Amino acid sequence: LVVSHPLYIHGFWDYETPKVMVVKNRTLGVIYRSVQFLVITYFIWYVFISQKAYQESETRPESSVYTLMKGSAIHGDEILDTVEYARPSEGGDVISTILRREFTFNQRQDTCAEHFNVADANCTTDSDCVEGEVNFNGHGRRTGRCVQYYNHTFKTCEIQTWCPIEEYAVVREPPLEEAINFTVFIRNSIHFPKFKVGNIKDARNKRDIKRYLNKCHYDEESDPYCPIFRLGYIAAQARENFSELCNTGGVIGVFINWKCNLDLDPSHCKPTYSFRRLDLRKDLPDAGYYYRFAKYYSKDGEETRTLIKAYGIRLDIIVHGHAGKFSPIPTIISTVTAMTSVGICTIICDWIMLTFIDKNEVYSERKFDEVSNKKRYSFSATQFHLFL
Amino acid sequence: LVVSHPLYIHGFWDYETPKVMVVKNRTLGVIYRSVQFLVITYFIWYVFISQKAYQESETRPESSVYTLMKGSAIHGDEILDTVEYARPSEGGDVISTILRREFTFNQRQDTCAEHFNVADANCTTDSDCVEGEVNFNGHGRRTGRCVQYYNHTFKTCEIQTWCPIEEYAVVREPPLEEAINFTVFIRNSIHFPKFKVGNIKDARNKRDIKRYLNKCHYDEESDPYCPIFRLGYIAAQARENFSELCNTGGVIGVFINWKCNLDLDPSHCKPTYSFRRLDLRKDLPDAGYYYRFAKYYSKDGEETRTLIKAYGIRLDIIVHGHAGKFSPIPTIISTVTAMTSVGICTIICDWIMLTFIDKNEVYSERKFDEVSNKKRYSFSATQFHLFL
Amino acid sequence: LVVSHPLYIHGFWDYETPKVMVVKNRTLGVIYRSVQFLVITYFIWYVFISQKAYQESETRPESSVYTLMKGSAIHGDEILDTVEYARPSEGGDVISTILRREFTFNQRQDTCAEHFNVADANCTTDSDCVEGEVNFNGHGRRTGRCVQYYNHTFKTCEIQTWCPIEEYAVVREPPLEEAINFTVFIRNSIHFPKFKVGNIKDARNKRDIKRYLNKCHYDEESDPYCPIFRLGYIAAQARENFSELCNTGGVIGVFINWKCNLDLDPSHCKPTYSFRRLDLRKDLPDAGYYYRFAKYYSKDGEETRTLIKAYGIRLDIIVHGHAGKFSPIPTIISTVTAMTSVGICTIICDWIMLTFIDKNEVYSERKFDEVSNKKRYSFSATQFHLFL
Repeated sequence: LVVSHPLYIHGFWDYETPKVMVVKNRTLGVIYRSVQFLVITYFIWYVFISQKAYQESETRPESSVYTLMKGSAIHGDEILDTVEYARPSEGGDVISTILRREFTFNQRQDTCAEHFNVADANCTTDSDCVEGEVNFNGHGRRTGRCVQYYNHTFKTCEIQTWCPIEEYAVVREPPLEEAINFTVFIRNSIHFPKFKVGNIKDARNKRDIKRYLNKCHYDEESDPYCPIFRLGYIAAQARENFSELCNTGGVIGVFINWKCNLDLDPSHCKPTYSFRRLDLRKDLPDAGYYYRFAKYYSKDGEETRTLIKAYGIRLDIIVHGHAGKFSPIPTIISTVTAMTSVGICTIICDWIMLTFIDKNEVYSERKFDEVSNKKRYSFSATQFHLFL
Repeated sequence: LVVSHPLYIHGFWDYETPKVMVVKNRTLGVIYRSVQFLVITYFIWYVFISQKAYQESETRPESSVYTLMKGSAIHGDEILDTVEYARPSEGGDVISTILRREFTFNQRQDTCAEHFNVADANCTTDSDCVEGEVNFNGHGRRTGRCVQYYNHTFKTCEIQTWCPIEEYAVVREPPLEEAINFTVFIRNSIHFPKFKVGNIKDARNKRDIKRYLNKCHYDEESDPYCPIFRLGYIAAQARENFSELCNTGGVIGVFINWKCNLDLDPSHCKPTYSFRRLDLRKDLPDAGYYYRFAKYYSKDGEETRTLIKAYGIRLDIIVHGHAGKFSPIPTIISTVTAMTSVGICTIICDWIMLTFIDKNEVYSERKFDEVSNKKRYSFSATQFHLFL
Repeated sequence: LVVSHPLYIHGFWDYETPKVMVVKNRTLGVIYRSVQFLVITYFIWYVFISQKAYQESETRPESSVYTLMKGSAIHGDEILDTVEYARPSEGGDVISTILRREFTFNQRQDTCAEHFNVADANCTTDSDCVEGEVNFNGHGRRTGRCVQYYNHTFKTCEIQTWCPIEEYAVVREPPLEEAINFTVFIRNSIHFPKFKVGNIKDARNKRDIKRYLNKCHYDEESDPYCPIFRLGYIAAQARENFSELCNTGGVIGVFINWKCNLDLDPSHCKPTYSFRRLDLRKDLPDAGYYYRFAKYYSKDGEETRTLIKAYGIRLDIIVHGHAGKFSPIPTIISTVTAMTSVGICTIICDWIMLTFIDKNEVYSERKFDEVSNKKRYSFSATQFHLFL
């Protein structure tokens, strides 16, 4: 930095280099070399080896996830297969499986009694119910009549809605504990655009792999490369109780982490998996995961529906990727930064030298050459000594 | 940088430090200190305080979004609840609500007249219609007959398709203006993998929060932490007219921004929300959002469907997160950079000194020591002065 | 770095500058200027011009994708339109089109024979079948009976499931080769939050654009700004055979890349498209894309379903964006780094000078000033020469 003054008085082809004072002091030398050693070690070990600063890196890979659920479960007389419990069916990076259902059968567009918990829904006469009113937490528009609450003795305001209302007619199924053995196949392809490297077609062992994939289940230790995951394993890895999940539902993140050092053989570039529950938020009490959908039927020209409130596990497959490859530019930049940082040693050692070791001002006299405006006065202390 | 030449002639334990000229010139000193002050201020204020360069940062949090629509609306004799208008039902980070529907009832696989707007569809005799032809903008395959256009007087080519065609038989519903009061609950959990920090379970006040969440609506000023949003509020914040949205549909981005300084208490780590319409593109005239779906019925063994063209609002929940935490490595790097940058002062001041203040070449003589190849000639001007 | 010692012995308003030795040596000067030229060229050309280091950049734009499929295809007596083959219907950034279907008609909850390929499914007497057993690769729960395998002569264990089972009753449709002409309209809006720049409404030429969009198809050369893509074109660009895709299905990434230099006119900010197949993974043999869904019917109070295994193309629209704009902060930082890096020249040239050109130690004597603890000994070689 301080070295080149190409604009100044000297010839263009002259070489300028700073003048240096060499201090023959063992203490100072040891301190100087130690600090230098620390800085160089830090750069070699941390920056170059650990952080791989000689590599160009790519942290935003193009990723594609395909998921496929498998397994079947029996519920009384009914059997559930993936078509029934896995939604959406298209198999993207968010897939949910139903673990518990609450049915409201045979709803139709009609009028019926509002639920008694809704504000102002309890009534004794029609005058208690305002016609056309829509309560935000209610289920529909009031007709202005006060009617018996289904087969109970008390009365609530009548509303126009899908009847009967869910809260009254709901039928709760027991949870689908068998789902602990359901599996989800996760195929994640990844591509690093900067390096034009990704998953490559290759034909070897296709048969063996197919046979293996037909029966393997992922396990961090025994089967780390099997992409088929038992729901029970996922829940256990996320440290969640599966029975509890069956009741409240939950969102579990499946994190796929690709850390690829492209200076090595690409076959080292394998994913690692981790799992964590995602649907908890400190300031919100409602954990869990559920959604509602309906199956529609046309009966004698009239539309009816079965409303289903489905509690389940939603798997969010989240992919992280990092690839690094040797590149001259970051190598040069890191090297220059390393060499620049070595200059920090001089600041520290100069301070030590001038503060603690500078006996009789020998060092400061030789290091500093004072120049003032007046020419006579400009002989520095250092020069003065020499002439004595 | 210029300080260490460990490979050269001196002993390994010698300390090398540059020789410095001290210029006792008030003007230069003031300039020097001012530039230094500016550089140091920039680093302390901008880099350290504003940009928090002493922190390690994480900008790609793992995020999970769960959405749940609520509200009901009346359409003539029909009531719509979330199961009807919210799609997809699974509650991910993209959720849409239907605001206006165009029905084509009772379509079945049959032959009927093509729409008259389709190219070459108008005909007078069968010979005008090529059997088997499929027009890209048309609705199906031509049968080769020329038939009456439904109950009109003119004729068009007959096609094999779902009959009747949408353009002819469509029934337009008025928009669902009541949807302005629909709400969407957005639960966004976030986790910064680098710091292993995220939303944590805690039990306090769960009851109070639950009661609060039952009635609160998000408002930037009065309820900034309520995660329940009125559609009308969202549209207003995105500066869009809700009635207009009802007609054309639209995509609105809900941006959740977490800016977490983990050196403070984690409870400061709260989201802020912003809203902006997303479906506009300068070079494309078609703003808006609609999609088509169908409900299928089996009537006497024959499949019929009701085709629904649904205009609506799609909410794209987009999460940004930034977390920072003190870390020694970036602190050291920023400090070294700061100290290196101070060197810039010398370049500026050297230039000023040598160009403007260098009376009688006093400074340049003492700063520069010229050495040429020939030994005799190597006495520099500076040295020469001294011997005179 | 080595220049300022504000803590030391001199006055606060003194200016300190390193002393420099000027070497009048042509060889060294040429080397010095060449290295300097290389470093400066690197910074100006690579860092400033190519990498645009004077710009603040934003690489994580907010993006919104809306997709809409179009086209119709005939299958025997049946016509398929987008409602039938495009899923999900909501038009997000992942959209799939069905290319081949395998139907299992009229399934109902019942008991029937297990498929003979399932382990232990073949039987001769009831005692071969364990009641209540659920085989993971099977279709349901065994009833304990051994029954005839549909209209075949051999027997398998009876299971409770959706009957008949898919493997037995499946009806394979020929692939929908006509889908090669289906189109997908992709509207991608983008916004760079750091610069508050994005797609802007403008009204000019809306009519012309609309007419153009009605008939244009994207082509890299002839129609690079038409956002309507033929499936056949996409497959061809991804270098995949469409007929093969029809059979196995596949996932194709549509990469939209926005590279915006905001120092120029925003109208230069246009997307480029690229296409690549995504569903291949080196270590997994199962390429392709399929999913299962069902249509449910209620017949005389009993629920039946048509199970559909759909092979298709899934398009994953993946958006990359990069915007850069001039900003003083990165300009200053890059300039300082450039100037610091010039210091590297001195290290190289010092090494050359002291190793190869240092005849008679002229240069080293003048560059280095040795100081030892003992005062007398402190006369350096350089000073010694002067006194001779």
